[in-house]
Amino acid sequence: MSRPLDAQMAFLQEADRLKSVLRATTLGNGSRRENSGEHSWHIALYALILGDHAGPGVDPSRVIRMLLIHDLVEIDAGDAPIFGDQDAAALAAEEDAAAQRIFGMLPEAQGAELLALWREFEAAESPDAVFAKSLDRLQPPMQNLASGGGSWIEYNVSPETFEARVGSKIKRGAPGIWDWAWPRFKAWFDQRAKTGG
Amino acid sequence: MSRPLDAQMAFLQEADRLKSVLRATTLGNGSRRENSGEHSWHIALYALILGDHAGPGVDPSRVIRMLLIHDLVEIDAGDAPIFGDQDAAALAAEEDAAAQRIFGMLPEAQGAELLALWREFEAAESPDAVFAKSLDRLQPPMQNLASGGGSWIEYNVSPETFEARVGSKIKRGAPGIWDWAWPRFKAWFDQRAKTGG
Repeated sequence: MSRPLDAQMAFLQEADRLKSVLRATTLGNGSRRENSGEHSWHIALYALILGDHAGPGVDPSRVIRMLLIHDLVEIDAGDAPIFGDQDAAALAAEEDAAAQRIFGMLPEAQGAELLALWREFEAAESPDAVFAKSLDRLQPPMQNLASGGGSWIEYNVSPETFEARVGSKIKRGAPGIWDWAWPRFKAWFDQRAKTGG
Repeated sequence: MSRPLDAQMAFLQEADRLKSVLRATTLGNGSRRENSGEHSWHIALYALILGDHAGPGVDPSRVIRMLLIHDLVEIDAGDAPIFGDQDAAALAAEEDAAAQRIFGMLPEAQGAELLALWREFEAAESPDAVFAKSLDRLQPPMQNLASGGGSWIEYNVSPETFEARVGSKIKRGAPGIWDWAWPRFKAWFDQRAKTGG
């Protein structure tokens, strides 16, 4: 007879594969690309530390849960760099299929609950999801600042592209954090423009 | 004037260094050692998935917070392999000094709260800490099972040493999970004894 623990432990072992999915951003010291497992830890820690900057109606513990599972679909669908040129609709379909397969490994009620939580994150409409998305957008540019440019250089990103794809999402969920961060990001882009990079 | 976000973002960038601390256990596919950042994500996910197996009085959200921060001290003190021969008292002192430095980077009230949470985990007395410790002990042998032996082989671990240093801790905080896991671990040790490993 199959027991809940059989399914739960198989899911947790499957999740281990996320540590092998590489992202466009690097560690702060620039030594290597970071993987989606350690990234997921880092932004869950962002949520733990920055919860007080969330808007009304946000439950930081729920945001942490959301962020712990938000990238699991990349086990099947891979990481789509924010400055890349993927087909958004095709990627969304691929990620939803991945979510159904991966959360479908769990006992039925638990799998359904986490699939719903993941879809809520993706939809980016609820207060929790909007805040979670803003943290997911905030961590990569902070890594870029620390490493001296990172994916901004690799993808030759303009400040306009950065504001449209990243800044707007940070501002929406965490305007206070954006006010703190934007002058720092802008200083990097201004410096790069000055040196003709 | 220093603002909370200055301190919080400096702390989050310091935390990034945990991704460069390597552990004795490997990824499930055995391809490389895992680092303490991705390990922290994995066991926070263990807590999210296995919360229903906790004893009375355990708050899974609090356990997740505990596990997200439990290894940060390794940025200064390094990872002490469970089957290694470290001086426990010296290590405890080194880790407590690390906790004071690292959580001391945060705004005062927040730093004090997380230092207390970390010390609660280390003391392993409260229901939350006992459950968190059991998950922290459970994940490495699950990795070893997946990879075909891992640190059990590297440290030539006997089933008696495993039960004393690891099994007893898993059993204390999560007896139901231990009942599920022990026959699987035992089968590995039995097989190794049979093949003279």
